[in-house]
Amino acid sequence: MAGLFIVFEGGDGVGKSTQIERTRVHLTEAYPDLEIVQAREPGGTVMGREVRNVILHGDYVAPKAEALLYAADRAHNIATVVRPALERGAVVIQDRYIDSSIVYQGGARELGDEVERVNTWGTGGLLPDLTVLLDRSDGEAWLQRDLDRVETDMVARREHIREGFRERAALDPDRYAVIDAARSVDEVQADVAAAVDAAVAAVGLA
Amino acid sequence: MAGLFIVFEGGDGVGKSTQIERTRVHLTEAYPDLEIVQAREPGGTVMGREVRNVILHGDYVAPKAEALLYAADRAHNIATVVRPALERGAVVIQDRYIDSSIVYQGGARELGDEVERVNTWGTGGLLPDLTVLLDRSDGEAWLQRDLDRVETDMVARREHIREGFRERAALDPDRYAVIDAARSVDEVQADVAAAVDAAVAAVGLA
Repeated sequence: MAGLFIVFEGGDGVGKSTQIERTRVHLTEAYPDLEIVQAREPGGTVMGREVRNVILHGDYVAPKAEALLYAADRAHNIATVVRPALERGAVVIQDRYIDSSIVYQGGARELGDEVERVNTWGTGGLLPDLTVLLDRSDGEAWLQRDLDRVETDMVARREHIREGFRERAALDPDRYAVIDAARSVDEVQADVAAAVDAAVAAVGLA
Repeated sequence: MAGLFIVFEGGDGVGKSTQIERTRVHLTEAYPDLEIVQAREPGGTVMGREVRNVILHGDYVAPKAEALLYAADRAHNIATVVRPALERGAVVIQDRYIDSSIVYQGGARELGDEVERVNTWGTGGLLPDLTVLLDRSDGEAWLQRDLDRVETDMVARREHIREGFRERAALDPDRYAVIDAARSVDEVQADVAAAVDAAVAAVGLA
């Protein structure tokens, strides 16, 4: 397709929202002729928000049903927002994609490889041209003190999720920029902008 | 599992609702000690009805997203209604199951074998002990007169769906009772009751 599909991934609290906004500003200023489209999963479309309400505000939802609802949200977002934008030649900057489902539902919740397969089918196999993985361990700060059991579990889960994302990146390193997010916003953004600029050039948009 | 899972399938208007109600009454009278549970897809649970509202009353939903929403509804119904009932030893009578998705979304709408795979995953591979396929051609009535183009298309689609269900039954004939539904309600019910009674006996519930 004519456009460029950039996804931001990473655990909670690594600074995705800030870096996405900085990236939007950077792209708008550096490439004034390009159309920039922001997207997000889950809940990036009206349909997706309705589905998300079912997950978050309804009663108990069975785990596989939840994974299928997220996959439906994604299939709709890709079909109605992302693919049309890419066909117009736009740069799409998206907050989270399939890796998040694999790491959070497939990995951490042990639903297995089928989560990847279902999502690959739902999106027609669309892969990002570039995934910016904001990678940060918060183990260091915690290790300086004694942890109670709840804190130990929380740190272990966050490290597990971080490792899940790093494993995804290692499977297809050419499509990932793994960026150390344990630095200042400006330092991180400099690396993100360099990776994004390289991707824009690689697909011939500038 | 200890119970018995009976599904009713067939095209629109073949008489499923009537036969399901008759079957419920028959089972209640013939086996007063058995728990009978009625279930239905789509929209058989609160979550399923919320999802169905998204499909039916929202804006456009992309076809794969729609198939995934139906699969989510089903995964939740199986996990929260059907499996617990079967584990209690109940007889579950369900209106439509995976065959309907394969025939309506996978076959008629050409989304392919993946619809079956997604649904098999979502339900943990649960197969009905018996599927009662109410089979009726309405071609005869139409063939006695000249058809306009819309009527020809409608008859062709209904025949296509009928054939889809018959093909499903032919793949695993021991699990299906294909019953000629182009007869009186009483005649059809006699055959349904015979098939259901055989299934109850086969799993040792009576």
